Amino acid sequence: MTIGIIGGGATGLLFSWYLSRQNPLKIFVRTNNQAEKINDNGITLYKAKEPWTSKSMTASSSYEGLEDCGVILIMVKQYHLSGILPILSKLPKEIPLVFLQNGLGHLDDVNELPNENILLGTIEHGCQRIDSDSVRHNGTGLTRIAPLKGDVVRLKSILKDYDEDFPISFGDSWKQILYKKLIVNAAINPLTAVLNVPNGSLVDNPYFKKLLHSILEEIIPLFPEVDEKEMMQNVVGICESTKENRSSMLKDIEAGRKTEIDAIMGYCLKQGELLGHQMAFSRLIYEMVKGKEVEQGG
Amino acid sequence: MTIGIIGGGATGLLFSWYLSRQNPLKIFVRTNNQAEKINDNGITLYKAKEPWTSKSMTASSSYEGLEDCGVILIMVKQYHLSGILPILSKLPKEIPLVFLQNGLGHLDDVNELPNENILLGTIEHGCQRIDSDSVRHNGTGLTRIAPLKGDVVRLKSILKDYDEDFPISFGDSWKQILYKKLIVNAAINPLTAVLNVPNGSLVDNPYFKKLLHSILEEIIPLFPEVDEKEMMQNVVGICESTKENRSSMLKDIEAGRKTEIDAIMGYCLKQGELLGHQMAFSRLIYEMVKGKEVEQGG
Repeated sequence: MTIGIIGGGATGLLFSWYLSRQNPLKIFVRTNNQAEKINDNGITLYKAKEPWTSKSMTASSSYEGLEDCGVILIMVKQYHLSGILPILSKLPKEIPLVFLQNGLGHLDDVNELPNENILLGTIEHGCQRIDSDSVRHNGTGLTRIAPLKGDVVRLKSILKDYDEDFPISFGDSWKQILYKKLIVNAAINPLTAVLNVPNGSLVDNPYFKKLLHSILEEIIPLFPEVDEKEMMQNVVGICESTKENRSSMLKDIEAGRKTEIDAIMGYCLKQGELLGHQMAFSRLIYEMVKGKEVEQGG
Repeated sequence: MTIGIIGGGATGLLFSWYLSRQNPLKIFVRTNNQAEKINDNGITLYKAKEPWTSKSMTASSSYEGLEDCGVILIMVKQYHLSGILPILSKLPKEIPLVFLQNGLGHLDDVNELPNENILLGTIEHGCQRIDSDSVRHNGTGLTRIAPLKGDVVRLKSILKDYDEDFPISFGDSWKQILYKKLIVNAAINPLTAVLNVPNGSLVDNPYFKKLLHSILEEIIPLFPEVDEKEMMQNVVGICESTKENRSSMLKDIEAGRKTEIDAIMGYCLKQGELLGHQMAFSRLIYEMVKGKEVEQGG
């Protein structure tokens, strides 16, 4: 059963490398150049010292053959989804679709797809794209998947039996997994991007820790399903265990790339408006990141 | 009539150079090393291309001879004042004292000095210390002086007739000049220090401009004596006319030095508390600068 992966970024390459070890795999990327490089060289994974190359996949810069996949993982940034949804809506309804974006702003559109099984997931791996056909796997993390519509039965039968470097868990509540991931991202990413510090500074620096708490106090109440105290500890724990890491949003700012601020903080601000919550801190941080995008871009 | 200047930073050196052209001048600095260098080499001013050296001053690292000065300009940062006030309080009461600090937090202490004429001032020159005996004069600005206690008569007779590169104006209202300077500093300095941008970005970048307005909307109402609309335009105008400048607070952060955040924003936050004003944005920016001080220092 062929697995389809849409997206040739860091996570797309990482998943392609791991999942191609047990299944035929096709990766759909945006440029001819990347497709050719992957078809010629395979994908190389850097983990520890030894790079490992896998050639057990084919790459394509068109969506030809997408309908022959047994399952499709959509691994593009949320702001690239709009171009892909119309293509997905024409696929056979029995193909399970797995969406692995940050944020929640896309769920209404995704929900309207006619497919029977639509799954949502979050990724905790630390990874970094080195080149269009190579990726660094910095830290193993859990991939959590839960159904938005339908169930995970078919998907589970395809994605089973992976090794300990690539664990996948199947759950029932997409809200729990997506809300928690969103809160983590909304607290850590924009703040580290604005302050230009690694994750650990948000708990080591007493002033930055105060800011982290201020943000969390605004964000967590947007999601009454999430336990406030437990979530606070969770975020602090993540800052501690990823002390040296520079967040993806900080890296995006440094590289002059578009960030996921709208998918993450923009979504929270909209929720705050709907619920009538005061979001002064979050709004300020949002404006700062948007401004930094403009600054870096030009 | 000897002019005394306390403080060997950028403005202390700048004022010593200019004022020594028409009066005997004594500069009081903190280290033996700086005093010796100035006594050996004089003070060199860099403006345009040609450096000019003046030797018409003596320097001292003790306060010996302070009581013989006809007027004393106190040009240390606000956070260094506490060590100097006890010395000033023992001077002959007829010596006018001119305080040229940012912020307003020191005024209660200054007001208790027994001296008959206590003047307050603000400086608009752009300058930068190059070395302990040399300073760069980047831009000519007005020095504004007004009495906190007594009058400016005696001072005026000493500090008159300076050239167009060093204009001094004497006014009646210390509130107008200090409040306006404080608002400018509170709006521009912390924001540029946090965002790591030159002054111009606060008006060119639409997101940063929004932040500038948010800060001003919190700060200006703390000072009902100041016209809100005029002040807004004033700050925007300063950002435009000093487009390429990096603010003193940004430079302090970059160099790992202590900033004037407590004298500037700390004072505003205290005023806000007294008046019961909501200061969410200002507080966040304050915490960010304090955190950046810790980050750079540690």
